[in-house]
Amino acid sequence: MAGPPDEFAIIAELFAPLAAGFPGALGLRDDAAVLAAEPGFDTVVTMDAMVAGVHFLADDPPDLVARKLVRVNLSDLAAKGAEPFAVLLAAAFPRGIDDSWLRRFAAGLAEDVRHFGIALIGGDTVATPGPLTLTLTALGRIAAGRALLRSAARPGDTVWVSGTIGDGALGLSAARKEMAAAAADVEFLADRYRLPQPRVGLGPRLVGLAHAAMDVSDGLVQDLGHLCAASGVAAVIAAERVPLSPPARRAIAANHSLLATALTGGDDYEVLITAPAAAAAGIAALAGATGVAMTPIGHIEAGAGVKVIDGAGAAMPLDRGGWRHFTGDRM
Amino acid sequence: MAGPPDEFAIIAELFAPLAAGFPGALGLRDDAAVLAAEPGFDTVVTMDAMVAGVHFLADDPPDLVARKLVRVNLSDLAAKGAEPFAVLLAAAFPRGIDDSWLRRFAAGLAEDVRHFGIALIGGDTVATPGPLTLTLTALGRIAAGRALLRSAARPGDTVWVSGTIGDGALGLSAARKEMAAAAADVEFLADRYRLPQPRVGLGPRLVGLAHAAMDVSDGLVQDLGHLCAASGVAAVIAAERVPLSPPARRAIAANHSLLATALTGGDDYEVLITAPAAAAAGIAALAGATGVAMTPIGHIEAGAGVKVIDGAGAAMPLDRGGWRHFTGDRM
Repeated sequence: MAGPPDEFAIIAELFAPLAAGFPGALGLRDDAAVLAAEPGFDTVVTMDAMVAGVHFLADDPPDLVARKLVRVNLSDLAAKGAEPFAVLLAAAFPRGIDDSWLRRFAAGLAEDVRHFGIALIGGDTVATPGPLTLTLTALGRIAAGRALLRSAARPGDTVWVSGTIGDGALGLSAARKEMAAAAADVEFLADRYRLPQPRVGLGPRLVGLAHAAMDVSDGLVQDLGHLCAASGVAAVIAAERVPLSPPARRAIAANHSLLATALTGGDDYEVLITAPAAAAAGIAALAGATGVAMTPIGHIEAGAGVKVIDGAGAAMPLDRGGWRHFTGDRM
Repeated sequence: MAGPPDEFAIIAELFAPLAAGFPGALGLRDDAAVLAAEPGFDTVVTMDAMVAGVHFLADDPPDLVARKLVRVNLSDLAAKGAEPFAVLLAAAFPRGIDDSWLRRFAAGLAEDVRHFGIALIGGDTVATPGPLTLTLTALGRIAAGRALLRSAARPGDTVWVSGTIGDGALGLSAARKEMAAAAADVEFLADRYRLPQPRVGLGPRLVGLAHAAMDVSDGLVQDLGHLCAASGVAAVIAAERVPLSPPARRAIAANHSLLATALTGGDDYEVLITAPAAAAAGIAALAGATGVAMTPIGHIEAGAGVKVIDGAGAAMPLDRGGWRHFTGDRM
């Protein structure tokens, strides 16, 4: 299709098929979507924005941009214990964007809509003289009153984290070719940056085991700090217990300063929880059931703030807690 | 506060108070918000984006920008018959934005949150090297299965529209000083452009009276065309029956080409409905009950497309149907 893409044609051809199977999406042909009442279930809603050049690289493949957008939002739902069922997309497209880019973007969106069993049920497409700006609203369901909150940590809880930490932040360096590492390690880390794996299978199974939960997106130390602040408690974690992937471990071995990057950088999209000792066996068993490792990294105590202890038992100085200045926080 | 504003400080100080009274907003300190199950009610959800320089003027007062953002979304909910209860805001702020601008923006948001009895329950704040880009997700409730849809128009229905048409499009010209008119008229029209009046009191009362409904935001003729397409019907409307405000009437008398602007320009945020003849008395009575005029402007018949008839009974040629090219449509 030559010339500037037409928004209605794009919605009808590329996006409307992603609404299939969700009657309340009204085929993306109405002003709004309708979520039918589901007695006994609460709806969990989250909304995250990404800007080209800020949250993803402007030359990232469009299908991966779409999938990252979906995944960062589903990560928030997973950390609340909710099962995702729908998303709405607001896209501000630069006028120069072409049909091929849009088709690849829509193909990535379609892939993840299928992969996660969700539907695209609404949104908005607008023009911008600025960079591509994408905002997603994601909706999930959870049994009434059971959502996992940041504010429920209690002294004595163990702090656990899913998967591995630091791959996203190291992956950004790797994708920018700022890191000397083997090609396979660069590829692994860059892929972890570009395509997060939201813990949608794990999150709902943490309900009943975890006290508090959140997703790690702005950096482990900063996010744990938010969880502590919301709960009115302190946390102590051991740096050497924080789970690292083999490529991250090799990168840090080659340049020890990257440990701080791993602990404070963003883009992990893992789940951080606190849980009582009695839940330990159940949490450990989830690894087998979901294929996602769960690692205890510290504990909650009375007080405020987060202390990170190094291998010698000393507090590590960390000069930044993570993303700030309008760059990544979720309300 | 000097220096670049801190996102967490902004959220805590300026936005968190707007979550008061909505426990599921979790004080804007969590990854997501929780909507408690409400048996017997569906949730209606819509999402609209606005870009500085595209959807509002870059030097528009920040409080009015915030209020317009809220109102264009509430207009979508009203047109579905839903009562708004919450919004989520994703804001991409240019790095140069200052504390004073943000405070005035938040004050406008607070004013409309109070005015409409809703809560701010979540969202995201990010930085952008481009223009201010604002996206709102709005949530409303309606009795299960009763949402008003675009797709329910039937041949024989009367086409009605609320309020007056064209003020927004003429107001944009007036705000840009492109129109010769009395100062009071310029002020009235520009105000209608900057501060839409979503028909939140009217919309829910149309349930049970209207067949189809939508909000008029991209231009009356284009939007009626969408309604007809979604319903598989045609519409015929009489240009001279389309309700105009006195300032719009004077502007069109001075320059008749502005009639087409009024009929096809955007930013009306009125409600367009189709309804059977039996509902006419009930609809007319709503004007008294809500203070918003309801005017019959034409009818639905079998076929496709929209025909606009002039005072002599001839079809008016309208060279554009309304906003296109990524500039204003809602999915």
